Amino acid sequence: MTDPRALDGSGTDQVFVVFSPSGRRGLVPAGTSVLEAARHLGVDLDSVCGGRALCGRCQVVFTPGEFHKFQVSAGPGALTAPGAAETRYARRRSLAPDRRLGCSAQLLTDAVIDVPPESQVHRQVIRKRAEAREIEVRPVTRLHYVEVARPDLEVPASDLRRLCTSLADQWPGLGDDMTCDAHVLGTLQKTLRNGDWKVTVALRGGNRIVAVWPGLRERVLGLALDIGSTTMSAHLCDLATGEVLASSGAMNPQIRFGEDLMSRVSWAMMNPGGAADMTRVVREAATGLAGETAREAGAGPDEILEVVMVGNPVMHHLMLGIDPSELGFAPFALAVDRAIETRAAELDITLHPGTRVYAPACIAGHVGADAAAVILSEGPYRRDDMTLIIDVGTNAEIVLGNRHRLLACSSPTGPAFEGAQISSGQRAAPGAIERVRIDRTTLEPRFRIIGVDAWSDEPEFPTDARVTGICGSGIIEALAELFLSGLMTADGTIDGTCRERTGRVFADGRTFSWRLAGDICVTQADVRAIQLAKAALYAGSRLLMDRLAIDTVDRVVLAGAFGSHIDTTHAMVLGMIPDCQPDRVFSAGNAAGTGARIALLDHEARHEIEQVVRQVEKIETATEPRFQEHFVDAMAFPHRTDPYRRLRRLVDLPEPRAPAAQSAARRRRRP
Amino acid sequence: MTDPRALDGSGTDQVFVVFSPSGRRGLVPAGTSVLEAARHLGVDLDSVCGGRALCGRCQVVFTPGEFHKFQVSAGPGALTAPGAAETRYARRRSLAPDRRLGCSAQLLTDAVIDVPPESQVHRQVIRKRAEAREIEVRPVTRLHYVEVARPDLEVPASDLRRLCTSLADQWPGLGDDMTCDAHVLGTLQKTLRNGDWKVTVALRGGNRIVAVWPGLRERVLGLALDIGSTTMSAHLCDLATGEVLASSGAMNPQIRFGEDLMSRVSWAMMNPGGAADMTRVVREAATGLAGETAREAGAGPDEILEVVMVGNPVMHHLMLGIDPSELGFAPFALAVDRAIETRAAELDITLHPGTRVYAPACIAGHVGADAAAVILSEGPYRRDDMTLIIDVGTNAEIVLGNRHRLLACSSPTGPAFEGAQISSGQRAAPGAIERVRIDRTTLEPRFRIIGVDAWSDEPEFPTDARVTGICGSGIIEALAELFLSGLMTADGTIDGTCRERTGRVFADGRTFSWRLAGDICVTQADVRAIQLAKAALYAGSRLLMDRLAIDTVDRVVLAGAFGSHIDTTHAMVLGMIPDCQPDRVFSAGNAAGTGARIALLDHEARHEIEQVVRQVEKIETATEPRFQEHFVDAMAFPHRTDPYRRLRRLVDLPEPRAPAAQSAARRRRRP
Repeated sequence: MTDPRALDGSGTDQVFVVFSPSGRRGLVPAGTSVLEAARHLGVDLDSVCGGRALCGRCQVVFTPGEFHKFQVSAGPGALTAPGAAETRYARRRSLAPDRRLGCSAQLLTDAVIDVPPESQVHRQVIRKRAEAREIEVRPVTRLHYVEVARPDLEVPASDLRRLCTSLADQWPGLGDDMTCDAHVLGTLQKTLRNGDWKVTVALRGGNRIVAVWPGLRERVLGLALDIGSTTMSAHLCDLATGEVLASSGAMNPQIRFGEDLMSRVSWAMMNPGGAADMTRVVREAATGLAGETAREAGAGPDEILEVVMVGNPVMHHLMLGIDPSELGFAPFALAVDRAIETRAAELDITLHPGTRVYAPACIAGHVGADAAAVILSEGPYRRDDMTLIIDVGTNAEIVLGNRHRLLACSSPTGPAFEGAQISSGQRAAPGAIERVRIDRTTLEPRFRIIGVDAWSDEPEFPTDARVTGICGSGIIEALAELFLSGLMTADGTIDGTCRERTGRVFADGRTFSWRLAGDICVTQADVRAIQLAKAALYAGSRLLMDRLAIDTVDRVVLAGAFGSHIDTTHAMVLGMIPDCQPDRVFSAGNAAGTGARIALLDHEARHEIEQVVRQVEKIETATEPRFQEHFVDAMAFPHRTDPYRRLRRLVDLPEPRAPAAQSAARRRRRP
Repeated sequence: MTDPRALDGSGTDQVFVVFSPSGRRGLVPAGTSVLEAARHLGVDLDSVCGGRALCGRCQVVFTPGEFHKFQVSAGPGALTAPGAAETRYARRRSLAPDRRLGCSAQLLTDAVIDVPPESQVHRQVIRKRAEAREIEVRPVTRLHYVEVARPDLEVPASDLRRLCTSLADQWPGLGDDMTCDAHVLGTLQKTLRNGDWKVTVALRGGNRIVAVWPGLRERVLGLALDIGSTTMSAHLCDLATGEVLASSGAMNPQIRFGEDLMSRVSWAMMNPGGAADMTRVVREAATGLAGETAREAGAGPDEILEVVMVGNPVMHHLMLGIDPSELGFAPFALAVDRAIETRAAELDITLHPGTRVYAPACIAGHVGADAAAVILSEGPYRRDDMTLIIDVGTNAEIVLGNRHRLLACSSPTGPAFEGAQISSGQRAAPGAIERVRIDRTTLEPRFRIIGVDAWSDEPEFPTDARVTGICGSGIIEALAELFLSGLMTADGTIDGTCRERTGRVFADGRTFSWRLAGDICVTQADVRAIQLAKAALYAGSRLLMDRLAIDTVDRVVLAGAFGSHIDTTHAMVLGMIPDCQPDRVFSAGNAAGTGARIALLDHEARHEIEQVVRQVEKIETATEPRFQEHFVDAMAFPHRTDPYRRLRRLVDLPEPRAPAAQSAARRRRRP
């Protein structure tokens, strides 16, 4: 093989350098710094200070030795010894023994240079779930340290112009056609002078100056906000590393205007200024979460330069200051269904004056920016297999498709899954029953409550544990277990005849109830409420499947706080989701929040989801006759069906009892 | 000549139409409206309502007859008779008998259609001065009436999306890639419904929605603001016609922080929050002027969607919220020297939330956005002849050049021209002497005061007229006349020997003074102050001429309030301006304000001046040794020079007296 330097035809003043793991290689003049060589060869090596041995982002590893693979023999003296600047950095900030600053170490002879992951500009945030995509860290806002030329009477150029010229000169790849936020102008001159003409610039999109600080600044933060009707959550991230520095949650203070979405829309419709009030309190809460997470991370709220905000259409509109009244009735017209980018200040969220807020597009009147974020997080549009994504809430948002086609709808499940409309129901909070099992023989239940790890029948279960109610996942499991243990028929009737076998079933007016623990019972009305909710959920999914003319899906992803807490097997027993291989049902956790984080860290993902959302086919359940059909069909619990038979292999499913009504009918037919 | 319709090869259903004055012609299907035909043929015919017989902007004139020139014979029935919509418009809004609505009148047979100037989108505002360029009316913001599709459950698209689609459908030339201000979203849904899905959209740059109003709206306004250190002026314009609807002026309230620029900069430097205070009051005053002019025009301030603001660097920076301290000392660093476009709301100027403010670029530390506006107004960069533009103020801004090269500098004239530092000096205000003549024989003066048309020696001059002082133009004329009448020598000494000829010259300490009227005198110190000012002015001009290696200029334009009031001949007698043909010295009035108006009405002019400003060569007088030389040379009054000889032909110039000092020296030499 030819010596690669021969290709270049250069003299002996050239050295051959190979970067790992990229494998990029080439000749550079002896004396070139590793950082310059990396830039020259297109190697991804980070730097904020622009090569001044200040930020330490360009750390590399050099090991002398023979690298036959690369035809490189690197002596220990391949790099210059650490100079004054690097030594100062090592003393001030500590530098591992095997590390060198790429900006200071100069190449004297051939070398192989290793770029560790944390020194790469383009990183990935690894997600825990095996099937989830990694998050690329390609933030829209980056920091650039720059030394600005001082003003000169002979060459009159404004401070801003010299700043831009210095940036373009000192940062390869930056043009000098930069624009600048107006607020920056107000403080620019003082900042430049306070920093003795050395400043750090936050550049947005590579060409807009949104902030300037004196001296070296190494961190810029972003906030991913998920505005739920009930709870709001915030994740504060380092925009350069993707690391989550702090997380916080809060109740949505709009609850005082109405428990669920529709009551808030009604509030807006009935009360002049009602929408504005709800906008104000949710923005205050968002500002509060930003401050809280910043405090936790030891940062100021003004270090947050990017915010991504997702929520259902009503939350989305209220955050943007849009009265959501139109979302309260057909045709459920959104004000806007494209991505929004605006200033945080315009939303009265007080962070840095240059902070931007990005909100992905709402998809339809009941399918919000949170659904867009879920799609971004789960990426069905990148897959060949057919994925059904269900984000359960008062309105379930359902997405079905693959890389060829993507459909979305919402289904009015009502608040039963959130514990509302359930006699002993409550929100998921400490003391709420979240897991239920019923012994198939003794018919005795055991349960787990939020906040306590032990099951109720285990010795570790505290005797004084306060059991306050049953939350959504608890009621799902309770119903599935009642059905599996034969205490409930397939049509959802608590079977009074079981009173012979257990004292927990008791007559409760004209129907029967089942006592779970203390005075916490499951009534027949509770069962009906959950049946309505799960039938709506199922019917929505079926409607989308009809459109694609499919009967099964390859994967089911349950998203949302509720979706991540329910046991997927029990959900299948209940018939909440269509037929699917049980091991292909996943719980995605707060996928909307994850999607917000992806959009926060990766500006290319924003374009991606904007494209995808535009392609999503919106199905309106309210006007689809088939929705009603599916809804009615889905009221009963699945039995004698293929999926049910498959489930039997997973859980100890009994031969189900015939629905009471059906057996009665059958009895009538065969007197 | 071939019948033009033959070229088209179309059948008899086509009619031939010629538009005048454009001369554009072509075939259109019979039944086409005149507006559609105009659009099809690229004829400039206005419309706000988009062809719905509502706005009346598309009025045309049709006269039947033979038009041999166009080979057209038009019968009286060439256009359809006025229909219901047009009749309704004529009743409601009145329509001249010879006018038709282009959107309603359909072409039945061949016709020649005249488009009157007020029906053209692209208009010109004719300026009074023969040598000034006309103002093109090409506003950045235009109105578009649109009927928006109602929301449809089956085709879910947000209100904004349907608005954009409807705009693109109904307005040829508009794309559907529109963006939208965030504030529009908050009110969009109500606006659409209040307008029963008929709204008027203000589009900025053809693709950004900045305002939406219910129903038809026909007027959008713009404000040209000239922020002077002493006075602020505002012109409110109709952005579509270019018409000035109202004008107003106010004292700059910053005066309370300092009379002149440098004392305001000092205030900012010495007082914490001082710059912010000055910013606040000037913005309040700007908002006040906007409100005042809007009231005068019978409009709301929220009809103003565009503001153009010009001022010297200190005023410019303070309006933008930038502390001007750096402009107070060398190297006089501007914060920004490019054009700024921002929201009025960001400058706390409360108009419409979509209102934008545009500020042309400052050129250098002492050459502001006002100078850029003067350049735009006077357009030296479009001319072959060499133009010298002098905008006189505390700092004179001087521009010299032609289409090949343009130079600018400022010269520290001090406030003498504004009446400050003059014993009887005052600002130009009623009662101030503004014109002075001295009889060459009797040496008796006569004068005119501001607010009175008659000269002081005329019978119409009121006996009780209050003469309060002498303003800048008055002192210029007084000095020139003193010199011309021999009362003052060429080196600027009031000649005590003249006491023999007039009682108005009197000893005043060790020098002499001259009494003009009552106790209003011109002292030797006054003469020195004006000499310093005019020498600075002259030296600045000469410095630029040196750079271009020229000794004369082809044109001199005196701009600014002061420049437009002084008599050019007297200015030349005084030696304020370099040599030029006296009939090529023009007074441009408030050229900065005119430039602001041009930038307001013509967005292409903005690009033009941005390009030009970038090319301007900035000359710093403070560091130029030749400036001092010119300054010293220019202290005396011009005499025995070519220009002076030329002037003698214009005014009754005597053979000048030799400077007193020189004659004394001569006397000494010849004892």
